Amino acid sequence: MTDIPAMAQALRAGDRRALARAITLIESGKPDHRDQALALLDAVGSDRQALRIGLSGTPGVGKSTFIESFGLMLTAQDLRVAVLAVDPSSARSGGSILGDKTRMDHLSRDPRAFIRPSPSQTHLGGVARRTREAIRLCEAAGFDIVLVETVGVGQSETVVAQMTDLFVLLLAPAGGDELQGVKRGIMEIADLVLVNKADGDLRAQASRTCADYAGALRLMRKRAGDADGFPKALTVSALDQSGLTQAWDEMQALSDWRRATGHWDTTRAAQARHWFQQELRSEMMALLTHDAELRDRLTGLENDVAAGRLTPAAAARAALAPLDRR
Amino acid sequence: MTDIPAMAQALRAGDRRALARAITLIESGKPDHRDQALALLDAVGSDRQALRIGLSGTPGVGKSTFIESFGLMLTAQDLRVAVLAVDPSSARSGGSILGDKTRMDHLSRDPRAFIRPSPSQTHLGGVARRTREAIRLCEAAGFDIVLVETVGVGQSETVVAQMTDLFVLLLAPAGGDELQGVKRGIMEIADLVLVNKADGDLRAQASRTCADYAGALRLMRKRAGDADGFPKALTVSALDQSGLTQAWDEMQALSDWRRATGHWDTTRAAQARHWFQQELRSEMMALLTHDAELRDRLTGLENDVAAGRLTPAAAARAALAPLDRR
Repeated sequence: MTDIPAMAQALRAGDRRALARAITLIESGKPDHRDQALALLDAVGSDRQALRIGLSGTPGVGKSTFIESFGLMLTAQDLRVAVLAVDPSSARSGGSILGDKTRMDHLSRDPRAFIRPSPSQTHLGGVARRTREAIRLCEAAGFDIVLVETVGVGQSETVVAQMTDLFVLLLAPAGGDELQGVKRGIMEIADLVLVNKADGDLRAQASRTCADYAGALRLMRKRAGDADGFPKALTVSALDQSGLTQAWDEMQALSDWRRATGHWDTTRAAQARHWFQQELRSEMMALLTHDAELRDRLTGLENDVAAGRLTPAAAARAALAPLDRR
Repeated sequence: MTDIPAMAQALRAGDRRALARAITLIESGKPDHRDQALALLDAVGSDRQALRIGLSGTPGVGKSTFIESFGLMLTAQDLRVAVLAVDPSSARSGGSILGDKTRMDHLSRDPRAFIRPSPSQTHLGGVARRTREAIRLCEAAGFDIVLVETVGVGQSETVVAQMTDLFVLLLAPAGGDELQGVKRGIMEIADLVLVNKADGDLRAQASRTCADYAGALRLMRKRAGDADGFPKALTVSALDQSGLTQAWDEMQALSDWRRATGHWDTTRAAQARHWFQQELRSEMMALLTHDAELRDRLTGLENDVAAGRLTPAAAARAALAPLDRR
């Protein structure tokens, strides 16, 4: 049995090992661990806020190098940085992003940094819950910045955008024709587009790509939380460590503006409501499947629907009969 | 009180007025109407299948003219055609698609056709349930083809693809640069891309646009239900009524192939499972909000979460306590 008050206290004191154990606890699928995790989340409080940055980029854009350089720049300013990963596919593909901390060798050894690989869950809902709760734990542990990394495939980037304050899209230099290859949905949630690898032979191409994206971003519909000039496209080089300060300045400018205008609080409240609805759905499903008899019943009804013997609506009513007290 | 057995009998006999009243019943939000709707869906059975065609296209591509020409071609072959619309935004925008049957003047007066405008619900989930159930009613009424029209914005096209056997994307001729403007998600669910307005001055441009899309479709990942050569791009002219027979031949060829290879049944079963899960979620939510006391409780918890006083997980547990029998 974990000593929850002691864990909460160590975590709030900034103990990284306590934080790591706390995240392991919230990742656990066991019902009694879940009860402890909820008690822990309650005990650590919600009085501390970090700047939560979502970072997305397909493999090959240099995400690890960027996080390493960007993270070290932040820790050099005495800021504490936590890095979390969302990769629901990692269990299938075998190669988890951030699975290998050696990809961020210096940052992982920095005492002001905390790096946590993606949990091995194939279900995006499970990964989302864990990440969202891990963010809260990192905030309670006094981290100033929580960077949530995701590969830009599937729906994980939308999920990450719904739990972060800023969303950064990292891209590699590309020919003009490739611009359309970026998922349109990602462009629509990005606050900052960073074209990486603006160094050596690729420098000129990176500038052209950046101009292309800047043009595309100007054509997009203005959103409520967009300060003047945002979303913005910049070039950076994680390798040369150039452009990183400017990128960080832009992130701060945007988040300061959002704090001042109330968008920050509005967005966080809307995100909390969203996650409450998600939790409600998954907890309801848990109620319907918590014992073998209920699970069998549900499977039987689903098979009846698939075979056309029952309509989805009639089957749903039958499934819920055990809970219905009307 | 509606006489459900009589309504079911009239509907199965192909009575269009009975069908219209039946759809009104399933669109109703009243709890006792819902009970009757479920009884009706049960009574009409599921022994008849139509070819369900999803049709998407942004305003201006000539969707109404296409449906009118295409529908009349089908009814001329003695096929019975039902047209349903999915437009969750219609209530807000005021102008419902298909709201004005005069847009399809000839088809709406054809005794082998049935046209039903979009219901005035802003919630996509509600529109989805109504449309899915209306499709079943049209099938029970002996229609051979059910055409489900949607505007290609938001998520309605994905929802329609999950309740149809074929998905057709209607486009207008465009310059090469505009190709990327089509939502990538739509291209990924299309079985057939039809470039309309291949007539008069636009004929050559339509052919070029069609070739562009054919090229783009060839680059896409092959899906399980793709017969050789699909997804395919063709030019049509709803105005000249050219290309419509070929488009219909392609739809039949693809659906015949899917029937022969088992993809048809597999897809319908998967769709049924999907809708069962959706129904389960909405019925669970209904259980939690069926009286004012429960609704107030839920609102209070959501506000606590938005204000940061409770975590989403703790609030979800508290919300479900009245249903929990563990």
